[in-house]
Amino acid sequence: MATIKDVAKEASVSVATVSRVINKSPKASQSSIDAVTKAMSKLGYRPNAAARALVSQSTDTMGVLVSDVSDPFFGTLVKSVDNVARENGKHILIGNGYHNPEDERQALELLINSRCDAIVIHSKGLSDEELIGYAKEVKGMVLINRYIPELADRCISLDNRKGAFLATEYLIRHGHRKIACIASTQDIEDTDERLQGYLDALKEHGIELSKSYIEYGEPNSDGGEVAMTNLLTKSLEITGVVTYNDYMAAGALSALDQNGIEVPNKVSMVGFDDGLIARFVHPHLTTVRYPIEMMAERAARLALARSRDEKVEDDTIIFSPTLVRRNSVVRC
Amino acid sequence: MATIKDVAKEASVSVATVSRVINKSPKASQSSIDAVTKAMSKLGYRPNAAARALVSQSTDTMGVLVSDVSDPFFGTLVKSVDNVARENGKHILIGNGYHNPEDERQALELLINSRCDAIVIHSKGLSDEELIGYAKEVKGMVLINRYIPELADRCISLDNRKGAFLATEYLIRHGHRKIACIASTQDIEDTDERLQGYLDALKEHGIELSKSYIEYGEPNSDGGEVAMTNLLTKSLEITGVVTYNDYMAAGALSALDQNGIEVPNKVSMVGFDDGLIARFVHPHLTTVRYPIEMMAERAARLALARSRDEKVEDDTIIFSPTLVRRNSVVRC
Repeated sequence: MATIKDVAKEASVSVATVSRVINKSPKASQSSIDAVTKAMSKLGYRPNAAARALVSQSTDTMGVLVSDVSDPFFGTLVKSVDNVARENGKHILIGNGYHNPEDERQALELLINSRCDAIVIHSKGLSDEELIGYAKEVKGMVLINRYIPELADRCISLDNRKGAFLATEYLIRHGHRKIACIASTQDIEDTDERLQGYLDALKEHGIELSKSYIEYGEPNSDGGEVAMTNLLTKSLEITGVVTYNDYMAAGALSALDQNGIEVPNKVSMVGFDDGLIARFVHPHLTTVRYPIEMMAERAARLALARSRDEKVEDDTIIFSPTLVRRNSVVRC
Repeated sequence: MATIKDVAKEASVSVATVSRVINKSPKASQSSIDAVTKAMSKLGYRPNAAARALVSQSTDTMGVLVSDVSDPFFGTLVKSVDNVARENGKHILIGNGYHNPEDERQALELLINSRCDAIVIHSKGLSDEELIGYAKEVKGMVLINRYIPELADRCISLDNRKGAFLATEYLIRHGHRKIACIASTQDIEDTDERLQGYLDALKEHGIELSKSYIEYGEPNSDGGEVAMTNLLTKSLEITGVVTYNDYMAAGALSALDQNGIEVPNKVSMVGFDDGLIARFVHPHLTTVRYPIEMMAERAARLALARSRDEKVEDDTIIFSPTLVRRNSVVRC
């Protein structure tokens, strides 16, 4: 690959002159610009992004850390950040953290070392303390789907408890009282918050149910299928089910279908996330909408503004979920 | 943010000494290493990735260009490349090209300018000529889901025609002869190849059908729903349908459901891709498997090997699709 020296030689100018042309210095003469441009084109020389970043001490790159980009939830998050980045003439560097501390730390270090001034982070593995440390170092770092009191002004989060409360109350309003909950075994705060929303709704409506009505599983369709099968095994009189996410709901629908139990006529079902699959399962899933696009856009704008020391308008940072009514719930 | 000069001052050593410590030079004394490490930690100084990249003229970053990372197909592609990158101590920079030449060019330029030595590209917007030009410049560039004869040894592609042929023949073997085809309106080679596979299978089995049996739509569920509705409007005797992809199949299933036409008892359906939704639609979709994980892994390994001038084993570069049997096809 051609170097800056090759370009200087080809253009019969000094390396300093080539550098001035590349960095658009006003000191570069038109004849130098012409000669250097021609030489660069002939040799296929590209001004090195690393060299330019070193001069300006900033890059055109925003960072985004997610759990796993192959999950459409995170793909949508990344796309939203990318849209904001592109609007601002920037591009994104993506890290996968797989919800574990070691991978999250490594990915985040890479983003910081690559001089991403603005970084949107979806972290479930790192401790509050560690994230507070990183936040001190990077003023343009913003957290999504996490709330840390010390970093309240840069946490974009969802009221998970309210989402599960809405789902459960929707079933109660439709006459259901024997409502099971399919919860997640994943050790993240979303798990506890959503379970709490279910319990709070029951309590507020004076419904007492044994703990048998709660089953846990991996937060995917297999986990939902196993959890629903376990619920059926217990011979409970279940008329409605709220689930940790849409994947678990899809698995639960399969288990009910295999057992010849019609949804929604015999059992009503509510999901969580309103992800890609909610519109494709049968029946189309009534679910809680997680406004991830809007939240990710907000997080990206906040990260950029902070990185530029711009004043940030006092805008929503805790988002509310809403209910999406489709075909999986009927009156009991 | 602290600079290398601040670190030198804090450690009471020269800038050159700090540089030697950062670059792990054997010339750095233990006392310098201790003093500089302590100063860096105290000041929160990070050796600049840009500076290190400039010295080594290479980065730890691999590039990957896809259409849209929020589509799980591309999310899966990206994850496969990421796995190979991590195995090799590298991270990935991702560009979205949205299947149009301008965005693809811009994203690819960024990846090249960021000194990604190994790049995996899913491009449908750029011309063969332009891609050949980039390939000359970047020896570690590999194309996925595209075949350009001049770059045959770095194109990882799928035999799309064979996939649609398999799907159509599977219906024929189950006694179907009135087989409709839901094709895509997108102007990419996959569209023509899959349509050709359908036509070839009919021809090989001596089945003649009018062009009315082919309908076109956007390659998403809405497009599939409209196309299926159009087919129904034409009062053809359709017993089976092959579709451009799983999303179109899902839309077609909705249209049939709305019209009270049972799948698979009245109409059998075959998708293409075996993407995330194939297992969730009702009935579970019989479809053509696009081995994108395996292909992306192969592309990433090839790109890395080429970038390092390593010998590449003569391995598969044109992959074959296979059929995944689920519940959407029965004997006619």
